[in-house]
Amino acid sequence: MLKESHVDVLIIGAGPSGLMCANALAGAGVNFRIIDNRPVGVAAGQADGIQPRTIEVLQSYGLAEPLLKEGAQMHLCAFYNPGPDGGIERTGRAADVTAPTARYPFKITIAQASIEALFVESLKSQGISVDRPIVPSSLEISQDPAELLDPSSYPVKVVLDHIHSSDDTPEQEIVHAKFVVGADGAHSWVRKTLGFTMDGEQTDYIWGVIDFIPDTNFPDIRNRSAIHSENGSCMIIPREGDKVRFYLQMADKDVMDPETGKIDKQKVTAENLINTARRTFYPYIVNEPKEVDWCSIYIIGQRVASKFSKHDRVFIAGDACHTHSPKAGQGMNASMNDTHNLAWKLAQVLRGRADISLLKTYELERQKYAQDLIDFDREFSALFSGKPRTSENQEGVTHEEFLSAFQASGGFSSGIGVHYMPSAIVHTIHQGSASNLIIGERMLPQLFVRAADARPVEIQDMLPADTRFKLLFFVGLLTSEKLAKVRRLAEELELPTSFLQKYNFPAQGKAQSMFDIISIAAGHKDDVNFLDIPSTLRTHWSKVLIDDTDVTGRLGGGAYPRFGIDEKEITIVVVRPDGYVGMIAPSTALESMDKYFGSFLIGKTLNREA
Amino acid sequence: MLKESHVDVLIIGAGPSGLMCANALAGAGVNFRIIDNRPVGVAAGQADGIQPRTIEVLQSYGLAEPLLKEGAQMHLCAFYNPGPDGGIERTGRAADVTAPTARYPFKITIAQASIEALFVESLKSQGISVDRPIVPSSLEISQDPAELLDPSSYPVKVVLDHIHSSDDTPEQEIVHAKFVVGADGAHSWVRKTLGFTMDGEQTDYIWGVIDFIPDTNFPDIRNRSAIHSENGSCMIIPREGDKVRFYLQMADKDVMDPETGKIDKQKVTAENLINTARRTFYPYIVNEPKEVDWCSIYIIGQRVASKFSKHDRVFIAGDACHTHSPKAGQGMNASMNDTHNLAWKLAQVLRGRADISLLKTYELERQKYAQDLIDFDREFSALFSGKPRTSENQEGVTHEEFLSAFQASGGFSSGIGVHYMPSAIVHTIHQGSASNLIIGERMLPQLFVRAADARPVEIQDMLPADTRFKLLFFVGLLTSEKLAKVRRLAEELELPTSFLQKYNFPAQGKAQSMFDIISIAAGHKDDVNFLDIPSTLRTHWSKVLIDDTDVTGRLGGGAYPRFGIDEKEITIVVVRPDGYVGMIAPSTALESMDKYFGSFLIGKTLNREA
Repeated sequence: MLKESHVDVLIIGAGPSGLMCANALAGAGVNFRIIDNRPVGVAAGQADGIQPRTIEVLQSYGLAEPLLKEGAQMHLCAFYNPGPDGGIERTGRAADVTAPTARYPFKITIAQASIEALFVESLKSQGISVDRPIVPSSLEISQDPAELLDPSSYPVKVVLDHIHSSDDTPEQEIVHAKFVVGADGAHSWVRKTLGFTMDGEQTDYIWGVIDFIPDTNFPDIRNRSAIHSENGSCMIIPREGDKVRFYLQMADKDVMDPETGKIDKQKVTAENLINTARRTFYPYIVNEPKEVDWCSIYIIGQRVASKFSKHDRVFIAGDACHTHSPKAGQGMNASMNDTHNLAWKLAQVLRGRADISLLKTYELERQKYAQDLIDFDREFSALFSGKPRTSENQEGVTHEEFLSAFQASGGFSSGIGVHYMPSAIVHTIHQGSASNLIIGERMLPQLFVRAADARPVEIQDMLPADTRFKLLFFVGLLTSEKLAKVRRLAEELELPTSFLQKYNFPAQGKAQSMFDIISIAAGHKDDVNFLDIPSTLRTHWSKVLIDDTDVTGRLGGGAYPRFGIDEKEITIVVVRPDGYVGMIAPSTALESMDKYFGSFLIGKTLNREA
Repeated sequence: MLKESHVDVLIIGAGPSGLMCANALAGAGVNFRIIDNRPVGVAAGQADGIQPRTIEVLQSYGLAEPLLKEGAQMHLCAFYNPGPDGGIERTGRAADVTAPTARYPFKITIAQASIEALFVESLKSQGISVDRPIVPSSLEISQDPAELLDPSSYPVKVVLDHIHSSDDTPEQEIVHAKFVVGADGAHSWVRKTLGFTMDGEQTDYIWGVIDFIPDTNFPDIRNRSAIHSENGSCMIIPREGDKVRFYLQMADKDVMDPETGKIDKQKVTAENLINTARRTFYPYIVNEPKEVDWCSIYIIGQRVASKFSKHDRVFIAGDACHTHSPKAGQGMNASMNDTHNLAWKLAQVLRGRADISLLKTYELERQKYAQDLIDFDREFSALFSGKPRTSENQEGVTHEEFLSAFQASGGFSSGIGVHYMPSAIVHTIHQGSASNLIIGERMLPQLFVRAADARPVEIQDMLPADTRFKLLFFVGLLTSEKLAKVRRLAEELELPTSFLQKYNFPAQGKAQSMFDIISIAAGHKDDVNFLDIPSTLRTHWSKVLIDDTDVTGRLGGGAYPRFGIDEKEITIVVVRPDGYVGMIAPSTALESMDKYFGSFLIGKTLNREA
């Protein structure tokens, strides 16, 4: 008799994507299990770059702080090109993050192991751990349409093999899952089992990567540096502590086996990589390092999976559905953001508060993003792997071409530019009411002061990833006429037919209510009375904000014009649980909000009929 | 046979002052013991205000973060006065912190228990706990002058009684201590044993205090509010969570026993205090509170001890040497800052690196501060306890008088204004080299960017309370001429006769080296090469800063003019281990730096002779 069990969500793979999923589901109180085929997590090397947007996302789970403290921060990027004497020289330095709205104007680098540890610790504090080492050996999905549409059914059957150190046959168990998330890496077993293909190409560029503590007189060793030399390109990525990562373009002869035409792993040594670095860095000196942490080699390949989901019951996420070159620092970020996108949707469907069709938006939103990302990556990698322009090589890449591509790609390389297309959850009709808060993009960071105590707060910190939709009521200037209008709006929202009543449920255990309300007035902190906001729009004294500067006059203010919101009107901004603007409406368009939420949420009446 | 033991420092009393001392000594690796006569720490009520300067100090021990997160923050102060209809009305709101250089432009309020828990947790993580309940029963100091001058002697003998719950005679032990710190509160046994008097007066003002969650329509309930009404004064102090503290001026009839003329504790009830509040708040409503945390009553008394130290072997600190009215939020702050001032001095003397005479500066610096503080407090309390000016009472205090006193006292009420007078460790001769960095005051907060990686850093975060003197080398603009000058300076500092060599010792265990070096260049982050700074002035890549803005252009920059330092010169600023500027010198005055450190430190040669 095999052990047999039921679980709401089975996560296969405990890398950054799987762990992000697990942590989000744990916070939402969802019943799930996470397994991994390795006996322990990664030790050294691997991915290491955290983009500005990913810092914002981690912050929305309360996890950014340790990274901000322990990671290295890349504020500047330095550019080196061949000088007149054959050696490299600095062409310039520029801000590494070019997205002007980034809350964190820098990237963080830290070992993948530290990122994973963040999630593992957070899970541990909730009494959850990764089951390992476990290998899935079969996966079947029910073909019964009724079963597939019933969110309470368990249509996925997975057989798991528990690996023991002994040579015995692995112990097997059967798991019946409502949903499965395959976050099992570039060689994803889940993807292969589902029969999805990876579409895209492999380039000829071969790159080495080495993590070590350098001893050098290169003046930008603590900045991200893009070096184009006549002896190959190099990207320097400063790392936590005194560590640095070098990405080095390798010559075929240095790494290929001339007979097989394949990479000779024997040739991939730290010594070999340091020697390559020396040629690239000339006239700067790279001394023999005291300590080498990790090194590896790879060929750039950019691919996206043909599908991200099967019957909206089995999903793939992370490296399982997209691979790209590491130098742009995208991989781990896209991976974590995949499951950040998916987790709240799973939670709401499992609670019976959202229609199962909501899950279709996962593939819709994330596959397009992956494809765009790979197109960008292909272009950027080609530019960086190409030969630099010199007097001998007039066909080469100029610094201006590279810099302009670098700066134009700010939205991508920072993650800030993610833009989800119109769908059930991205409703763009009233974009004009807040013309600079782009529907489908993440809510802009902005400092407000709290009306009750003038404490400055970052609006993003009031939008935690807690599965709730945040309703921002921009009530504008509180004239007596406006106050009357605000009170009428509050009364309308109290009607049982209003979305606010129909789709709201009180919190139950870890399952939060559906909505959180924040009111934002225009005006001055010396005048505004927070008690003027009716209680429907003021669920706690801390949730009434003012668009004003803090007491020093140095922080905050100017949000209404910046967002393109009229202070004379009342404008409602709906922020999705993942921090993206889902809808905007003037207070006169409540019925279009009813419709928006009605298109994917399950209301109280419907529930009663079920 | 009594148990008998030796300890370097015995701390008597585990309130904020004693715990600050313990935590600082633990960080410095000093052998000490801390005892307290209560079986557990305080539970509710008591002191609750943390000033901006105290936040800076706690930050220098790495302890500010939990307070910043959990405490309430007072950014604004609202002022209420009698209106034409007899009730109160708001006269205005103003910034609560008026000291323009405060790094944290607000005060924090949080229960004393939470402050104590910070220290207790920090000590626990270092394997140290408070011995309790223990009562000292006798204290003797040797009269032998040679013994008193020998820092390795144990001239203080203290007998301790271990209190057990049973009625038996307490178990006694004898402790021989090099130094004793009496941080045992307003009724200090140590102070009485030493025969020090408390000098000052008690006023007639009676105040009640209550911590509770209010239910009111008063619009400034989450701001600090100073209410002058015809029915008495009230100070509102918002607290962590939804709690609020009221300080209420009580009428004699409400709290005095008419027969004895003393306070009748029976009359001090939450109900009585709430009723007083209702009269003061009219026309605003204060409903029956659901929850009352704590309440008490006190008569304002302002007193300072006649002496702070006996033979520089036994010290008193905190409430043991100064008491004042709670409303100005001073008590706990002065108390923690007493031992912050003392701890590094004890550590350096015990290590044999500073002369025992250094300890004289404790009384010198802290007694004067306590006296100034009490003078300020007396004036402020009288103003606040006085009747407001009304049409009937033309003698009363006007809002303008109160507001101007409130704003003029910003240096005191924020703790930023602390100014230590010239002494062995405050050497003012070269003040002109950095005219706005006042010698004897705390080092100004300022954001710089690191030269190697353009990461913004707050200079105060590079000045931890780790017993080291910080040497800030303001090297200015790095012209080639200047670089030659910087190299010559570095060479001079390498000479064995230089203070940097003579008084420096390598770190040993938790005992840090004597000096930490930070170099600060003028210039632009796009140009400066951190490797240009010679290695004597660049002990790590992270310790070379630039006076420039961060990549967003919004933070940092302008420090040279702000500090009054000439970019064309080289200026050295010495910051004491407690964060106060001890000396400033142009690079041409190294011998006056040799003299400064020579006046209280013990050099290598001297050590060898000993």
